[in-house]
Amino acid sequence: MGCPVGIGPEIILRYFSAKERTHQNAVVIGDLEVLRSQARHFNMDIACSAWKPGEAVPQNSIAVYQVSSLAPSELGWGKPDIITGKAMAGYIETAVMLARDGDISAITTCPISKTALQKAGYNYPGHTEMLADLCNTTEFTMMMAGPRLRITLVTIHCALTKVSPALTIEGIKKRIELTYTALQQDFAIHTPRIGVAGLNPHASEAGIFGREEIDIIEPAVSKLQGQGMSVHGPLPPDTIFYKAAQGAYDAVVCMYHDQGLIPFKLLHFADGVNVTIGLPIVRTSVDHGTAYDIAGKGVAESTSLEAAVTMACDIAENRTQGIRL
Amino acid sequence: MGCPVGIGPEIILRYFSAKERTHQNAVVIGDLEVLRSQARHFNMDIACSAWKPGEAVPQNSIAVYQVSSLAPSELGWGKPDIITGKAMAGYIETAVMLARDGDISAITTCPISKTALQKAGYNYPGHTEMLADLCNTTEFTMMMAGPRLRITLVTIHCALTKVSPALTIEGIKKRIELTYTALQQDFAIHTPRIGVAGLNPHASEAGIFGREEIDIIEPAVSKLQGQGMSVHGPLPPDTIFYKAAQGAYDAVVCMYHDQGLIPFKLLHFADGVNVTIGLPIVRTSVDHGTAYDIAGKGVAESTSLEAAVTMACDIAENRTQGIRL
Repeated sequence: MGCPVGIGPEIILRYFSAKERTHQNAVVIGDLEVLRSQARHFNMDIACSAWKPGEAVPQNSIAVYQVSSLAPSELGWGKPDIITGKAMAGYIETAVMLARDGDISAITTCPISKTALQKAGYNYPGHTEMLADLCNTTEFTMMMAGPRLRITLVTIHCALTKVSPALTIEGIKKRIELTYTALQQDFAIHTPRIGVAGLNPHASEAGIFGREEIDIIEPAVSKLQGQGMSVHGPLPPDTIFYKAAQGAYDAVVCMYHDQGLIPFKLLHFADGVNVTIGLPIVRTSVDHGTAYDIAGKGVAESTSLEAAVTMACDIAENRTQGIRL
Repeated sequence: MGCPVGIGPEIILRYFSAKERTHQNAVVIGDLEVLRSQARHFNMDIACSAWKPGEAVPQNSIAVYQVSSLAPSELGWGKPDIITGKAMAGYIETAVMLARDGDISAITTCPISKTALQKAGYNYPGHTEMLADLCNTTEFTMMMAGPRLRITLVTIHCALTKVSPALTIEGIKKRIELTYTALQQDFAIHTPRIGVAGLNPHASEAGIFGREEIDIIEPAVSKLQGQGMSVHGPLPPDTIFYKAAQGAYDAVVCMYHDQGLIPFKLLHFADGVNVTIGLPIVRTSVDHGTAYDIAGKGVAESTSLEAAVTMACDIAENRTQGIRL
């Protein structure tokens, strides 16, 4: 459910309404009364009912696994506090527990407030780190996935001047390996083809515009090619995404945030999904925040949630069925 | 005509053939016999005839202003030398002279070989610098323009680690001003709206991921806003291009090569045009190189040349007619 005073509950209501419950097996892990209260607030004629693992998912109402019992009248739109923070953290802990126990096949997360999370005593830099810790996983990363392009990032929230010093052969190698495994397990691609972007213009043209391609990226790519992986690069950043979108690569491993996010958002502003790869459980996330500025106003859209749930279902199915030959 | 042993003559022949001479007023500045010889080589049934300023442009053949008299039998595909280099430089000098004299309204350049140019004694880093020098212009830059996106770059062929040290308030201000003037004069936009990209992820979120937005970019933008320009930024790089492509900005001023070229080539791989802005004459260029590896093979495509000529015509018309109110 994410933060109960953000747009999470609203987009959940819209998702279940808009889809006319075609995802019959989706359940909400959150707060029943908050959802009921918001349905009334937004004038949405949709029932919500309590659900527990083992029970059938009801066909004519939204199934809610009750984790918190917040008093809706005491909540302020866009005003998270310690109480909502603890509730929100509880949804995540419960979801991971249910997923690890096999009671649910995948998790899609609605946005949380990092500040509220930390106020509630959970000292994680973000949502994903908390999920990884609950799964005892240290090797994980974000993959942004859409119908035309998938990307992973070697460095993420890093000032541009700090990118080059943060690149290592081992770090790039690990990111490519995580990407490769995810393409096989989560996207059912038998022999993934990965493009690796250079750091500099024209991938430095043999060292004219920087040494990182020669000293760091190429050795990482070579090692993996030596292991038989179809990994290509370092390639000129200004054409690799066009080629990937045309079908040349199943994913592009990017050296820094904007190198990957600029082309990704250009193609998938509305239908891009954030997938956490490397976890033992399936987790996708909406690609927007809590949007406190519009919480309660009835203008939030559920397109990103819909794309995230659909992809979570696909990944869960792929993991169960294995690679299609 | 560009380098006579690259794909320049071939794409010129294809352009005039494919368009069935709808650009009746286009003339080639180059070498008549080279063009005739290549038409025979490629089995293209198209006549070429000599043309001089003041004469009517012939309607049933390609008009060629004869600058060099190379011996076609002595040329090697993809093998430029001092002789072809001097001829190529002559085409550029002649084109600029004709444009400055008003004999032609615009120049579209085919690709040249920088090495051959330098061997022939012309010590310019590239085509554009030579054109600017011939026009006695010091303030000029490249704009990449397509139907959905226009971009200019503050730094161009610069290693990523060298980008931040190369940014100055004055440099960014000048680039925005050049962009603004070009949007008015060349694209007939009365009140241009310019988006300025930040350097760091999320435009640094008030300094969390770097200081360049606060210390350098914002002051440049503020000064121009103070002069009444509709300039916006520094904006998060991962969404500014999506917004521009949706129509929010007439151009995006980018801090480095790949920040601008990644989204531009993603949208305009086939129909993007390189426009030199800031010159007293109109100049567009194809966005590919001499392609020596495929010269003579009959596989070159003229789509980029076609887009470049069309845009040159539009810009020339806009400059003549002035801003449409």
